[in-house]
Amino acid sequence: MTEDRTRAVRELLDAVRAEGRTALTAPEGKVIADAYGIAVPGEELATDVEAAVAAAERFGKPVVLKIVSPDILHKTDAGGVIVGVEGAADVRAAFDRIVENARAYAPRARIEGVQVQELLPTGGSAQEVIVGAVTDPTFGKVVAFGLGGVLVEVLKDVTFRLAPLDTDDALDMLDSIRAAEVLRGVRGARGVDRAALAEQIRRVSQLVTDFPEIAEVDLNPVIATPEGAVAADIRVILAEGAPKPRRTYTREEILTSMRRLMEPRSVAVIGASNEPGKIGHSVMRNLVDGGFSGEIHPVNPKADDILGRKAYKSVTDVPGEVDVAIFAIPARFVASALEGVGRKGIPNAVLIPSGFAETGEVALQDEIVAIGERHGVRLLGPNIYGYYSTWQDLCATFCTPYDVKGGVALTSQSGGIGMAILGFARTTKTGVSAIVGLGNKSDLDEDDLLTWFGEDPHTRCIAMHLEDLKDGRAFVAAARETVPKKPVVVLKAGRTAAGAKAAGSHTGALAGDDAVYDDILRQAGVIRAPGLNDMLEYARALPVLPTPQGDNVVIITGAGGSGVLLSDAVTDNGLRLMEIPADLDTAFRRFIPPFGAAGNPVDITGGEPPSTYEATIRLGLEDPRIHALVLGYWHTIVTPPMVFAEVTAGVVREFRERGIEKPVVASLAGDVEVEEACQYLFERGVVAYPYTTEKPVAVLGAKYRWARAAGLLGGRSMR
Amino acid sequence: MTEDRTRAVRELLDAVRAEGRTALTAPEGKVIADAYGIAVPGEELATDVEAAVAAAERFGKPVVLKIVSPDILHKTDAGGVIVGVEGAADVRAAFDRIVENARAYAPRARIEGVQVQELLPTGGSAQEVIVGAVTDPTFGKVVAFGLGGVLVEVLKDVTFRLAPLDTDDALDMLDSIRAAEVLRGVRGARGVDRAALAEQIRRVSQLVTDFPEIAEVDLNPVIATPEGAVAADIRVILAEGAPKPRRTYTREEILTSMRRLMEPRSVAVIGASNEPGKIGHSVMRNLVDGGFSGEIHPVNPKADDILGRKAYKSVTDVPGEVDVAIFAIPARFVASALEGVGRKGIPNAVLIPSGFAETGEVALQDEIVAIGERHGVRLLGPNIYGYYSTWQDLCATFCTPYDVKGGVALTSQSGGIGMAILGFARTTKTGVSAIVGLGNKSDLDEDDLLTWFGEDPHTRCIAMHLEDLKDGRAFVAAARETVPKKPVVVLKAGRTAAGAKAAGSHTGALAGDDAVYDDILRQAGVIRAPGLNDMLEYARALPVLPTPQGDNVVIITGAGGSGVLLSDAVTDNGLRLMEIPADLDTAFRRFIPPFGAAGNPVDITGGEPPSTYEATIRLGLEDPRIHALVLGYWHTIVTPPMVFAEVTAGVVREFRERGIEKPVVASLAGDVEVEEACQYLFERGVVAYPYTTEKPVAVLGAKYRWARAAGLLGGRSMR
Repeated sequence: MTEDRTRAVRELLDAVRAEGRTALTAPEGKVIADAYGIAVPGEELATDVEAAVAAAERFGKPVVLKIVSPDILHKTDAGGVIVGVEGAADVRAAFDRIVENARAYAPRARIEGVQVQELLPTGGSAQEVIVGAVTDPTFGKVVAFGLGGVLVEVLKDVTFRLAPLDTDDALDMLDSIRAAEVLRGVRGARGVDRAALAEQIRRVSQLVTDFPEIAEVDLNPVIATPEGAVAADIRVILAEGAPKPRRTYTREEILTSMRRLMEPRSVAVIGASNEPGKIGHSVMRNLVDGGFSGEIHPVNPKADDILGRKAYKSVTDVPGEVDVAIFAIPARFVASALEGVGRKGIPNAVLIPSGFAETGEVALQDEIVAIGERHGVRLLGPNIYGYYSTWQDLCATFCTPYDVKGGVALTSQSGGIGMAILGFARTTKTGVSAIVGLGNKSDLDEDDLLTWFGEDPHTRCIAMHLEDLKDGRAFVAAARETVPKKPVVVLKAGRTAAGAKAAGSHTGALAGDDAVYDDILRQAGVIRAPGLNDMLEYARALPVLPTPQGDNVVIITGAGGSGVLLSDAVTDNGLRLMEIPADLDTAFRRFIPPFGAAGNPVDITGGEPPSTYEATIRLGLEDPRIHALVLGYWHTIVTPPMVFAEVTAGVVREFRERGIEKPVVASLAGDVEVEEACQYLFERGVVAYPYTTEKPVAVLGAKYRWARAAGLLGGRSMR
Repeated sequence: MTEDRTRAVRELLDAVRAEGRTALTAPEGKVIADAYGIAVPGEELATDVEAAVAAAERFGKPVVLKIVSPDILHKTDAGGVIVGVEGAADVRAAFDRIVENARAYAPRARIEGVQVQELLPTGGSAQEVIVGAVTDPTFGKVVAFGLGGVLVEVLKDVTFRLAPLDTDDALDMLDSIRAAEVLRGVRGARGVDRAALAEQIRRVSQLVTDFPEIAEVDLNPVIATPEGAVAADIRVILAEGAPKPRRTYTREEILTSMRRLMEPRSVAVIGASNEPGKIGHSVMRNLVDGGFSGEIHPVNPKADDILGRKAYKSVTDVPGEVDVAIFAIPARFVASALEGVGRKGIPNAVLIPSGFAETGEVALQDEIVAIGERHGVRLLGPNIYGYYSTWQDLCATFCTPYDVKGGVALTSQSGGIGMAILGFARTTKTGVSAIVGLGNKSDLDEDDLLTWFGEDPHTRCIAMHLEDLKDGRAFVAAARETVPKKPVVVLKAGRTAAGAKAAGSHTGALAGDDAVYDDILRQAGVIRAPGLNDMLEYARALPVLPTPQGDNVVIITGAGGSGVLLSDAVTDNGLRLMEIPADLDTAFRRFIPPFGAAGNPVDITGGEPPSTYEATIRLGLEDPRIHALVLGYWHTIVTPPMVFAEVTAGVVREFRERGIEKPVVASLAGDVEVEEACQYLFERGVVAYPYTTEKPVAVLGAKYRWARAAGLLGGRSMR
């Protein structure tokens, strides 16, 4: 069955190719639809007017007449479509008019006849939708789904997924558009047949997966009714050429070389220098000052020793096994030095120098990539600041050492963003496992790093700044492997820059770069940070926060005003304010003044002593029905900031020692002493911020998004 | 004409009232539509089946039949509507069926007949829209406009304006929905008659203004076509009762008392105390320590002197004129002391104590409000931290003095948020003209403060945290007066908390609290801050930034990565990246390396010396076609942070001295030294932030939003 299907389509596509065409005709589209079981209206090709009349009579209901010509792609524009024709006289007239219009529109077009098609229902419970597939430059075959019609085309309410997909994914697409409610039936209309619609999406995804040369498919519109889903029109466009295959590595190969990169025992610095101000000096200095305990071998043909260590003329002279060669020489010398690295059998080259593809020197970059591939040397960079592996005390950069060991691995495509990462980390004392510059990504890229950090026991969260992905599917695969273990945060820059792409189909026009990125990154379980500062805050906070065990969020606040703003933030972040059961309400009320508000937020009022904060936080941690706490502190004489911080941290620690860990975040409203209190709390596992009610809840929201994607909160994961 | 119109509707509404009804019938609706020139389809009331047949014949096209009964509000639910009936036989059958359905649905309903109505066009260039009016608890009469149909009801794409409005405002509503494009015609459809549609909105706004007892009006749907706009159905609902009028003050009265509040020469502290820890002590201490140069009179029956100043038994004993009485006594003593303040003729009472409406003591609050009104004493609070008037060195609070004089006036409804304002201001050295707590707003509220700060020459920007408005129209009036002079930033808390309100109309159901607030605040020219931290950042930065003179924004960046993120932020904030003309491109290229990118962002690349930053910033300020600069700095050894800051501040100062002032904002990516550089730049008029590409552009966006609202950038203001 599957073979038959494949063969029929293969033959058809080969024939179309042989004619030098990329656009299929409607009858050709129908052959494909039939092969893949995509429901289409009954139709026949009428080559003369009497055949059209006979066909219309056989269907026994109103029909649509459409011109059939390999040379006319936009049939409506050509006056080649007439809808709702009934009865012999009208069919005759319509046939003649269509042919006439087509001749006027494109006098030299080959006209193969007129398609006579059953008219599909409209209005009432019939809903127009669009199902399609495109070939995305980053992610390859991608399916799209949205409501049809003018409004959604204007409002761009459409969702994307990687092809192929299964029925559950297809059903999820129906729920992923903003107007999803419409499909379930509103204002008295019945809901559409979701299973039939999902099956159409699935079959389109299978079609483009089986035939990579199909660049775009449009089922537009599909008429979905309570009884089924029928594609009124199918458009298929073939690709002009095939994409170049990319060299890939197995998971084991990646882990082996990445382990030697991130946990090296011996590094060589090519271009090491005694001269302050030179990059080769900074790198040596930082390796030494950072306290790296492995071997550090300077390579410099003109020096005997550098910073008190024996220098070698060439990297091939370095004794023993070397894990990483760090390049601190101008671009034009990299190729020959890299040959030496290859001969020496060093698995990793860290290419700090710039002057490659980013300055137009594409050939020079291609050359080093070829050398790397030939010798099996993986390349980091070029055009990077280097990298930090803090648990190894390794600072292989021209920046300055960083010594706050912790759980977050940060990567950036841009050097400037790398510097912002370093400054932010230092000023906030963020606990870091690694900071890695990716630069031009001539070889190693985000999916290699993700694969490693997913396994690295020191890393509890991964945050990546990126402008593009070389291979979107490899990234998604690595993300899917990693997300169940730890959160992956992505800042995708260039969200808005991409203009509309030239496209031959509706689906293509809807598939703006960022819309596809957004849906597919979410599908991979990645937490997308809306901006740089958000990425940095998520990175700092996520490894600190325990994973929530359920959806019930409770706000405990000293300031009613903060409570209102925190409630807004909870809703904005898709979190759920717990509905407090009566017994719990009574329990909270025992601690707060009679005019304070229980319910949620629990408003303990501003004048309360530390014991009120303590008792209510204790209750929040104790009651198993509560899963996360959001605290709103108000600076008063009765409970000064550091007193609040000590009380809160103490209660949280006490419960942690009892094995009860819930995420606790706090917003501190007060004079400048709250800053010290926030730092104190943060270092003790309570994510706290001054002068903002948004950030603590945004971070909690990110943790929840991850927990859902990782399948830790019930429901389906990685959506 | 207008009189006739008013009389006809007055008579009708009185008759409806006399019957004890609040919902009007369709024929009554038509009387109102006719009186206000609201186009409706031709229609007749048929009291028997033959009259219906005759009416349908007269219209000569398909008709709609609808049951007419004062007891049946939801006609469709009752099976009381049949659409598209044509020919005598069908009209007869439909008439009988409708009456039968209605009897079955509501056996005791009075049936007055069947309405026979012309059928309006559908499909093609005909567009269903909804026009309505509701009575908002905050803003009073409000008109609504949106596209009709299921999608927009699901997507909630609707816009609101205060009634009455003029034609320009009504036309602006057509452009304010997300799907505005649809009305201009898409996919081959012609655009609708915008003037006719706007006129319908205007007339509905006039109707509800003329007759405040009309609570809700629904024209749903209105069929808009290229030829006109006809309301297919009109529903009118009357209010149950009239709102209680609120005491108002004239602008002159407000300014007179506010001037004495904010620029007092003499203040009395009721409840002043020598005992540390008491609020009456803190307030005295702060007045003295803050350096207030006017007279400070402690009032305390049990002391002879307080902090070295003569104390009085009663406020009536204080010699000379007093401008402000500050209350630092428990709630239960406030009323009698306020009587004394009234007798003494003091125009302002600052009520710090809590224990009024916020703790359920509503009667106590009503009592002091009555006392204030009787004596003409304006009340600030109760339940507040007090207020600061920095240019007077006045700190009338229990917090601590604040001495960084500047251009922003901040107010908060909540004491907790007030403390966050103080802490943020202190840590960022924000220049402040006033910080005012509003608390329970028993009397003085945002519109009084706005009126004063609008006139206050020290104040260059006003930022307000609020949870509700006592009188939305007074606020809008004050904002409209103020915005052309200076920006007004509002943080409206409780955006998401408001559930759907019970409503008898579609318009009512769409008018969620926040949707109305959002549209009307924007219409008043207010900049709405999405969160607390945004409000604080806008407040800090807006008075520092000069006003842009045009839309052309140019990004100059050392880090390509920052450039991409800054471009995203520019688009996100509704700003326009200038298309760089060829000559300007050439001029920029003279300063940057050949592989740097001109265009916009201007990417000077990372390794450049201070002179490259300087030359390109100079060019950006010099060229009159560029109106605002966004700088992306990348920390390097060649151009360290403070060097960049000094160079940039120097160039900006030089141009300012030449009379050229453009907004310049900067994102600094680098190690912790960038923090000092940002503070240095901020103090010199360049709004700079570390570790974020979003904040500097968000602030620039807020400045642009204000400039547009103030009418300083062409186009229509205050939208």
